[in-house]
Amino acid sequence: MPKIIDHKKQKEKIAEATWRIIQREGLEGATVRKIAKESGLSIGSMRHYFSSQSQLFIFSMELMNSKAEKRIKSMNLFSSGPAIEDIRRVLLQLLPLDEERKLETEVWLSFSAKSLNDPELQALAKRLYDILYDALKLVLDSLISLNLAKPDLNKEIEVEKLCALIDGLGYHCIMRPDQITPAMIESVLMHHLESLCDSKKGK
Amino acid sequence: MPKIIDHKKQKEKIAEATWRIIQREGLEGATVRKIAKESGLSIGSMRHYFSSQSQLFIFSMELMNSKAEKRIKSMNLFSSGPAIEDIRRVLLQLLPLDEERKLETEVWLSFSAKSLNDPELQALAKRLYDILYDALKLVLDSLISLNLAKPDLNKEIEVEKLCALIDGLGYHCIMRPDQITPAMIESVLMHHLESLCDSKKGK
Repeated sequence: MPKIIDHKKQKEKIAEATWRIIQREGLEGATVRKIAKESGLSIGSMRHYFSSQSQLFIFSMELMNSKAEKRIKSMNLFSSGPAIEDIRRVLLQLLPLDEERKLETEVWLSFSAKSLNDPELQALAKRLYDILYDALKLVLDSLISLNLAKPDLNKEIEVEKLCALIDGLGYHCIMRPDQITPAMIESVLMHHLESLCDSKKGK
Repeated sequence: MPKIIDHKKQKEKIAEATWRIIQREGLEGATVRKIAKESGLSIGSMRHYFSSQSQLFIFSMELMNSKAEKRIKSMNLFSSGPAIEDIRRVLLQLLPLDEERKLETEVWLSFSAKSLNDPELQALAKRLYDILYDALKLVLDSLISLNLAKPDLNKEIEVEKLCALIDGLGYHCIMRPDQITPAMIESVLMHHLESLCDSKKGK
């Protein structure tokens, strides 16, 4: 009987090998040959799954994004406890405070730099930013609908600000690990969340 | 008479060619051969000035940084007019709102990604972040000494926050040019500056 190959799993195996190589050696190191070796496949199989390096990077980034989305969805938000606590937990999930999210942020930084000169990757970066942006808009909407937000909150400006702050904090976490501790990163984000809320309202 | 070569100028010419190539083709494209061609020098001359690609990148980033520092110093801050206006102008200088600063941010993003896997570049990135961080600490100190800051301002948290926000806004400016306008970037930063100030105090 011929061996049944789970193609979805094979593609994911290649994507995960790609992340590890990018983290270890940077995007320059992520050659077809090295990724094939890391994932234990032949170069021929790799070519069967991905016709170009851009296609492989796009799949890898999309898989990373959907894993992060699943992780956040599995947190069972708004099921119990005070809602502000759920918002806190979602925001912290967006920062590289453990090894998995550190890998994501490092790969994302390499990917971002490459996307500046690659229209296909640029289109994907735009899509992934839209997802983040919509999620943060939802955070602000929740603060408003829960009646926790400051009355004069400028939503358009605050969503851009929160998005930039989370990106900036993530980069600092991996670029300046000796200067900024995870505890400090967390404090900054929580301090910002408080600044969005009306101090007179209960939490 | 032998031609007198200004070595400092030659090195700067190479560095500027390096920036242009990184912006056009990404860091992967910045090979010795291409940089030599772009700067109109032989590969031999390039090797005379820089013994390794890391050395060349380090010089290029340091030159970029010192140009930005000179640009800010030449603004004649605190010479006339209200001081809050000077602080506004300094902060805006840190964002990619014109072609020169857009080039800087794009090159910085590529450099950041590469520094994750290169200890020499990492040490330089740390130094350059320290300079930015100190400048932003000075901004907060100025707000305090000018008696413009909110009385309960947490300086340690606010300097990290401002640093992350400026980095994040800069990245969004180049990564999401169709989604976020320079005017919006400026509004977010000015909105943040206002949030640091005591609304009861005059400007």
